[in-house]
Amino acid sequence: MALIVQKYGGTSVGNPDRIRNVARRIAKSQAEGNQIVVVVSAMSGETNRLIELAHQIQPNPDPRELDVLLSTGEQATIALLSMALMELGARARSYTGSQVRILTDSAYNKARIIDIDGNAMKRDLEQGYIVVVAGFQGVDIEGNITTLGRGGSDTTGVALAAALKADECQIYTDVDGVYTTDPRVVPEARRLRVITFEEMLEMASLGSKVLQIRSVEFAGKYRVRLRVLSSFEESGEGTLITYEDDEQMEQAIISGIAFNRDEAKVTVLGVPDKPGIAYQILGPIADANIDVDMIIQNVSADDLTDFTFTVNKSELKNALKVLEKVQTQINARELISDDRICKVSVVGVGMRSHVGIASFMFKALADEGINIQMISTSEIKISVVLDEKYLELAVRVLHRAFGLQNNNAV
Amino acid sequence: MALIVQKYGGTSVGNPDRIRNVARRIAKSQAEGNQIVVVVSAMSGETNRLIELAHQIQPNPDPRELDVLLSTGEQATIALLSMALMELGARARSYTGSQVRILTDSAYNKARIIDIDGNAMKRDLEQGYIVVVAGFQGVDIEGNITTLGRGGSDTTGVALAAALKADECQIYTDVDGVYTTDPRVVPEARRLRVITFEEMLEMASLGSKVLQIRSVEFAGKYRVRLRVLSSFEESGEGTLITYEDDEQMEQAIISGIAFNRDEAKVTVLGVPDKPGIAYQILGPIADANIDVDMIIQNVSADDLTDFTFTVNKSELKNALKVLEKVQTQINARELISDDRICKVSVVGVGMRSHVGIASFMFKALADEGINIQMISTSEIKISVVLDEKYLELAVRVLHRAFGLQNNNAV
Repeated sequence: MALIVQKYGGTSVGNPDRIRNVARRIAKSQAEGNQIVVVVSAMSGETNRLIELAHQIQPNPDPRELDVLLSTGEQATIALLSMALMELGARARSYTGSQVRILTDSAYNKARIIDIDGNAMKRDLEQGYIVVVAGFQGVDIEGNITTLGRGGSDTTGVALAAALKADECQIYTDVDGVYTTDPRVVPEARRLRVITFEEMLEMASLGSKVLQIRSVEFAGKYRVRLRVLSSFEESGEGTLITYEDDEQMEQAIISGIAFNRDEAKVTVLGVPDKPGIAYQILGPIADANIDVDMIIQNVSADDLTDFTFTVNKSELKNALKVLEKVQTQINARELISDDRICKVSVVGVGMRSHVGIASFMFKALADEGINIQMISTSEIKISVVLDEKYLELAVRVLHRAFGLQNNNAV
Repeated sequence: MALIVQKYGGTSVGNPDRIRNVARRIAKSQAEGNQIVVVVSAMSGETNRLIELAHQIQPNPDPRELDVLLSTGEQATIALLSMALMELGARARSYTGSQVRILTDSAYNKARIIDIDGNAMKRDLEQGYIVVVAGFQGVDIEGNITTLGRGGSDTTGVALAAALKADECQIYTDVDGVYTTDPRVVPEARRLRVITFEEMLEMASLGSKVLQIRSVEFAGKYRVRLRVLSSFEESGEGTLITYEDDEQMEQAIISGIAFNRDEAKVTVLGVPDKPGIAYQILGPIADANIDVDMIIQNVSADDLTDFTFTVNKSELKNALKVLEKVQTQINARELISDDRICKVSVVGVGMRSHVGIASFMFKALADEGINIQMISTSEIKISVVLDEKYLELAVRVLHRAFGLQNNNAV
């Protein structure tokens, strides 16, 4: 008998019919001999409705009270799903984050899980109950209601799987797995049967929206066997996130192409090339709470160098405001920015043991006349910044060049 | 400095504007030097929306899960009202029933309060916080969420006032107090400045919808000073529920006229007049969970008697089904019923020390040609059952006959 944690998102439980469908799937999985713990989000649209209501009252809602308000969304879903399970003849029992008890720190709106008490759930499972837990929420040591921030239900699912030592954590979404790239851009994109934890982490951080990055980190920390599945298709094995490179993985050099249209780049031109300059530029940016993604500083030919980094498009204005002050202090020649860029990345643990991946990638782009503006690499990823007009072309070219329509994909 | 518990119903917090209005009133009361604990209901319509949702999933919703679902309604209101108070510059903190901790028994959907922990609230009050508590809900010893049943927020307010030894419990409603009778029936009806606890209890049980009867009982048990006020009018002292008959009360023989259109009467004709017959008739009715209000059995002239009682109209069909079996067992001659009746009651502690109130009442009705079908009395109440067509006429005639447009009313 396997113990499985299943997580269903807001779209999967968006109305009574869908709740009934999810209940059928869960009851079937239990009938197949599994013990099931279910984690659910608020019904789709509900969290936004509550946030809207809060903003009508308080333009900048109090964080503690916002969590009291938002946590009602998942609480309603656990009750409705438990009812649907009982209507099918199953035994079911719901738990809020506070009832479980999912202990978090007191950082309202973005709390982190400290500990989970699995005793009540284990007792219920032994008695044949399906345990239905509210995602996204917890309780601090003082008994205050907390939430984990957007996408936090994925994290709840993974954390429960870790606490209960579950055999698998299944994340049900509106896609049927992790793809080699976005099928809307490349129709031949294929679902991956397996992907390594490190690759998944890169894909998540590079803009693939399948899994929330914190939940992937959490899974990695506790080695939770994680699987992404579709909540709308009855069959399908989805994509399994693994922790060891098996032979098949060894053969796949590249697992996927990720991309991101949300960034803008800022370049400080003619910066004196001396120690401490990077800090003088990025320190004030960090102080202004602006997240920086790529950072590039090239070797300089003379005493001056150019310094480039990328930020989220929505932060560009703020970043420039901060830098205008810095510019005078450090005697930089000029400040230029561009928000019409995109980032395209190839990801794969296989590139560790293969040389020439980067040059192969750059040649494929060059053959199509695509100019590369910036390059950044990690052990299992190569990212390039391009003019945004090349996004679709670049992704298609690379997908084909690396033969992603075949290899490990299904 | 007075400690005041204020309770606001669903209509008073029905939308963001109304929540802001309520917040202003609370903040003003605090600015006047009071410590304030607020109890709120779900926004009007929300509880019905949730019940409808539950019924779409499970025609007969599981009681435990229904409470998990319904309790979200008040939880949303406490967060929004706390935000509104903070927006006015006040300090505020919300508590769910479980956070307070309002300990109840485990009778889901109709739980009874066992104990309230006032420590956290007292600490907050001393620090200048306005404490905002979710009405209608509690938690059992196992940590399961419970609700107190419809109107339970009144009970929460009174119970908190008792636990905190508050100076006054103010129930804000959409009327500005308790009236001598329903102003929609008698335009000259007057608001009562004071009413005794016993009278309020009779009024509540006789169909006056101002206060939920359980909350009045609770207030009486713990001698909570209770006041009914309008949440829509800025000034006004409402109606105070007292526990001693002061002089003014002594002079008012009758405080009000209550009425009820929701009952039906059932008569078992030609019942053998022997011991145990009342139990043989009412036992099966009680077993079927049907509430009985008035019960009349007259002295019989021969070996046979007639037995009449009233039930809620919605229960009439069930009651008749039960009695058809009983009829054969006890050899009753006939079973008749009438759902076109009404009950009109005069209530007043003053009638204890005055003779002739009943005959005065019956004469007033007779003068208008109104036939009385049944009579039932208590120490401070006389109820008559009439053809429903006489309801308005009877109430107006009695209101005038007892001079209610004058005496203690405002």
